[in-house]
Amino acid sequence: MSHPRATVHWIYAHPQESSFNARLFRDGVEALSRDYDVETTDLYRQRFDPVLAGPDLGDPQGRDGNVVELMGEVYAGGQVPPDVVEEQRKLHAADLVVIQFPLWWYGPPAILKGWFDRVLTNGFAYGPVDPDTGLPLRYGDGPLAGRRALVIVTAGEDERSIGRRGVSGDLDSLLFPLTHGTLWYTGIEPLDLHVVHDADSLGRTEIDHESARLRERLSGIADESPSSPYRRLRDGDYHGIRALRTDLLPGRTDLGIHRVRSD
Amino acid sequence: MSHPRATVHWIYAHPQESSFNARLFRDGVEALSRDYDVETTDLYRQRFDPVLAGPDLGDPQGRDGNVVELMGEVYAGGQVPPDVVEEQRKLHAADLVVIQFPLWWYGPPAILKGWFDRVLTNGFAYGPVDPDTGLPLRYGDGPLAGRRALVIVTAGEDERSIGRRGVSGDLDSLLFPLTHGTLWYTGIEPLDLHVVHDADSLGRTEIDHESARLRERLSGIADESPSSPYRRLRDGDYHGIRALRTDLLPGRTDLGIHRVRSD
Repeated sequence: MSHPRATVHWIYAHPQESSFNARLFRDGVEALSRDYDVETTDLYRQRFDPVLAGPDLGDPQGRDGNVVELMGEVYAGGQVPPDVVEEQRKLHAADLVVIQFPLWWYGPPAILKGWFDRVLTNGFAYGPVDPDTGLPLRYGDGPLAGRRALVIVTAGEDERSIGRRGVSGDLDSLLFPLTHGTLWYTGIEPLDLHVVHDADSLGRTEIDHESARLRERLSGIADESPSSPYRRLRDGDYHGIRALRTDLLPGRTDLGIHRVRSD
Repeated sequence: MSHPRATVHWIYAHPQESSFNARLFRDGVEALSRDYDVETTDLYRQRFDPVLAGPDLGDPQGRDGNVVELMGEVYAGGQVPPDVVEEQRKLHAADLVVIQFPLWWYGPPAILKGWFDRVLTNGFAYGPVDPDTGLPLRYGDGPLAGRRALVIVTAGEDERSIGRRGVSGDLDSLLFPLTHGTLWYTGIEPLDLHVVHDADSLGRTEIDHESARLRERLSGIADESPSSPYRRLRDGDYHGIRALRTDLLPGRTDLGIHRVRSD
């Protein structure tokens, strides 16, 4: 008996074809292609336009009204720009989403930030309300639920300066707007980050090692789940849709409180 | 006796001229212009290109090598693209930097993220090392030290869902990559955030009120300092350039530990 292979959408942002990131992208896609149908978004090569502007709001000349509402109308009316339609198609078809980028100013490069701004539109990635509870379907639920995401990030700093209590902040907190505020918001469950530290100073042997380490991780990705999942809004851990219940982890204010197992 | 007026650089990102953000931008610039020389960067109107690419690395066709090193060579060699040169000129001339944007996916719109990616280049915004200590001049020091920044952000959510223990994370943590990882990294001291909550549902009276509240704050901005400044790397609170000293705020891992007065 045959069944369709699982599908991966790998979204990648780096300007140089000769870069370490390009190597990881090529090797990772090749490795996954043995077991999955892999579709890619090579943002630089596609010359993806990351600027959310008039066409995304229903009129190239610009249009008055609330941005979120306008994007909802555009999606409902089938007027989404063709380049965004294509990205939405690939993302919607995916069981696993891979997002790979170098850390620039402690976040994703603009070309990737704009992919989220433009592709994750109202109606496609968020918007519906649970008819039973009246609560919005977000943070764990929502239109893209059922998918998992692997975020691969290369950082110039070492594990200590960008780790817990590190001078630059810890990477889990720095990327919380992406893993929790973007992916989890729409229903996509982020796996543990895949981080390469000291990425600006790797020698040839270390690059080979990092490629092997990534391929090793990808080989087991089908069975992987996050070591500490984010809380689901519908599980009742929050006061309505607002703050974490006062009896849960009292006094703590770090972003780790939004994980089910917060150590 | 006359002396030159202080200078403001106001960087603004919103696609619609009819938006609430546009109103705050116009009213704020007008108010400041009475006491300051104000230069503006209206990213959408300028059609600023936020994608760091070949020209920023010294060759429109792309060039091999480490991105940080290449950008340092480009800056040292006077090959910075003209649109970036102009932004660097305005920023360097400023005593106060205002950065205004709507919160999209819990961060700045791509057109603004790319302004940081392209304008804050190696050599211009970071890079030098303290000859006495051998430590890099960053986090409080660095080429842009002596400037202050006011970050103005409009958010669709209310104070609780995006506040302390809020389901979306607190705004101070969500914007840490900007206020600490970007501004403070280069030496620019961020003032307390200026936040407008529920920004998608303001009525006419509330919009007038928010304009007045912003102008009121701007009227006292010359004397303002952050209620809890970030720690300076050179003050010895960290193990070298890495993690916060274990005797300071032991056990805490929230991003607030990087402030001098952490409550």
